[in-house]
Amino acid sequence: MIYYLDLAGVAVFAASGVLAAQDRDLDLFGAILIATLTAIGGGTLRDLLLGHHPIFWIVDNWYLVTIIAAALATIVYLQFRPAPAGLLAVADAFGLAIFAMSGARLALEAGHGPLIVVMMGTMTGVVGGMLRDVVTARVPLILQKEIYATAAIAGVLTYLGLQAIAVPEALAFAVGAVVVISLRLVAIRWGLNLPSTPRLPRQD
Amino acid sequence: MIYYLDLAGVAVFAASGVLAAQDRDLDLFGAILIATLTAIGGGTLRDLLLGHHPIFWIVDNWYLVTIIAAALATIVYLQFRPAPAGLLAVADAFGLAIFAMSGARLALEAGHGPLIVVMMGTMTGVVGGMLRDVVTARVPLILQKEIYATAAIAGVLTYLGLQAIAVPEALAFAVGAVVVISLRLVAIRWGLNLPSTPRLPRQD
Amino acid sequence: MIYYLDLAGVAVFAASGVLAAQDRDLDLFGAILIATLTAIGGGTLRDLLLGHHPIFWIVDNWYLVTIIAAALATIVYLQFRPAPAGLLAVADAFGLAIFAMSGARLALEAGHGPLIVVMMGTMTGVVGGMLRDVVTARVPLILQKEIYATAAIAGVLTYLGLQAIAVPEALAFAVGAVVVISLRLVAIRWGLNLPSTPRLPRQD
Repeated sequence: MIYYLDLAGVAVFAASGVLAAQDRDLDLFGAILIATLTAIGGGTLRDLLLGHHPIFWIVDNWYLVTIIAAALATIVYLQFRPAPAGLLAVADAFGLAIFAMSGARLALEAGHGPLIVVMMGTMTGVVGGMLRDVVTARVPLILQKEIYATAAIAGVLTYLGLQAIAVPEALAFAVGAVVVISLRLVAIRWGLNLPSTPRLPRQD
Repeated sequence: MIYYLDLAGVAVFAASGVLAAQDRDLDLFGAILIATLTAIGGGTLRDLLLGHHPIFWIVDNWYLVTIIAAALATIVYLQFRPAPAGLLAVADAFGLAIFAMSGARLALEAGHGPLIVVMMGTMTGVVGGMLRDVVTARVPLILQKEIYATAAIAGVLTYLGLQAIAVPEALAFAVGAVVVISLRLVAIRWGLNLPSTPRLPRQD
Repeated sequence: MIYYLDLAGVAVFAASGVLAAQDRDLDLFGAILIATLTAIGGGTLRDLLLGHHPIFWIVDNWYLVTIIAAALATIVYLQFRPAPAGLLAVADAFGLAIFAMSGARLALEAGHGPLIVVMMGTMTGVVGGMLRDVVTARVPLILQKEIYATAAIAGVLTYLGLQAIAVPEALAFAVGAVVVISLRLVAIRWGLNLPSTPRLPRQD
């Protein structure tokens, strides 16, 4: 079950990579490459940091196959109609949610404490999208003012909290993911954001 | 033989790093640092992803020595005459070719299937140049419209295909590299490109 | 002692991350995330490259606690008064110094030769700040014209040279760090720089 969620995560992040690349004049393989970086970036960093070899997508071809299929489907779709408004942000929200949860789960299974679990979940969730935005020379979503990393942190805390009160892991995973997605979508829809750090004039 | 090709690969990528850095006001050591990141970025990622320790340049000083020598030679050359038009792209094409092939070879030797071999070759080839372009705040070559990642993929497929029909590995390596370089140079010279993904208006 | 220097290094780099993020409209957690990337980026790359698992901050919560505390303190400070002119560059100089030294030390302890030690120290020192600047879409400090990577290299060479004449390691570490900081601050104050690589017209 969680395995299929993981595949769904790489699929939506792959789609978000194609959406981010679409006005960058990339050809077919360039677009698939960006999709792949976006989809496996977070999980790969998670596995590298935890010293968890082999990396998840190296031993299981379904990840790459899913990414390529999702990227191609997105490209074909875009031939017929434009991406609906905000689709990149929505696809990104799903990827963020699933990757934050799976990063947290792996850190938890490896026996790490809550601080590392929160940190690893958040980094796993945001790194793929950051790579996508940096490589396609876009302003990273994480730098936009709506709730972003905060959504991932809230989801991982929910996941940890539910397990602390004996909720089964798979259910805690799902609820945590729903929390991330809901927070992000609500934040995008109504422009919610935490107070930002101050905008004083900078002198350097 | 392939070892010397590998050294040639780091040399041309080091030179491409200096060329990319030359209008960025870097001093000598800054330029060498960018050259080094460009030259070892792809191979280092390859080794990290395959869990292949120690990393290639850590156990063999010739890589760093070659990089420093190539960077210095490029810097000295630039004191006397400007870089010929398109030299950055040509140096990049050679680096892309050799690194795509050596990434593919290492993945193949580690027993991985064709999908991982293609993927690892492509990533090894493009990552050094991506790092160079991101760090020097340039538009990544991979985002230009001519054939780029596609050239690496075609070269790796050639390398795999030739070995499948019993061509010796070293020859397959060389022919694959020639395919990458030819595709890139032809694409640059005549502005060839695959149809890009569509440029519909984006709304997010 | 050196452990506390290391904690001081992550603290100042965390503060520099918040300073770099402050006009980017990040919320609290976004700012802490950038602070964390900046503070652990260099050391994490060092550990990954040397195959040194577990990564330093994964087994010792004090690093993350220090980063969060330093980031929060910086955010609170900025509510009351603007950052003094050049504070980002000064915080960066301290982080650069400590991380360059600790990267060099780890490489030396792992038995590597001088070339790798210099290289590893320099990369450890500059990578956190590079990540900070790329992720916050700023022009990387390393691309500014004052002495930067050069300061790290000079510090590591001092560290190696002092040990070669039997100076105790901890003292060599401290003197090396002072060399880096002094070079950077002098360079910033009086605009010192090595002659840059030439600015010939580029044609590609």
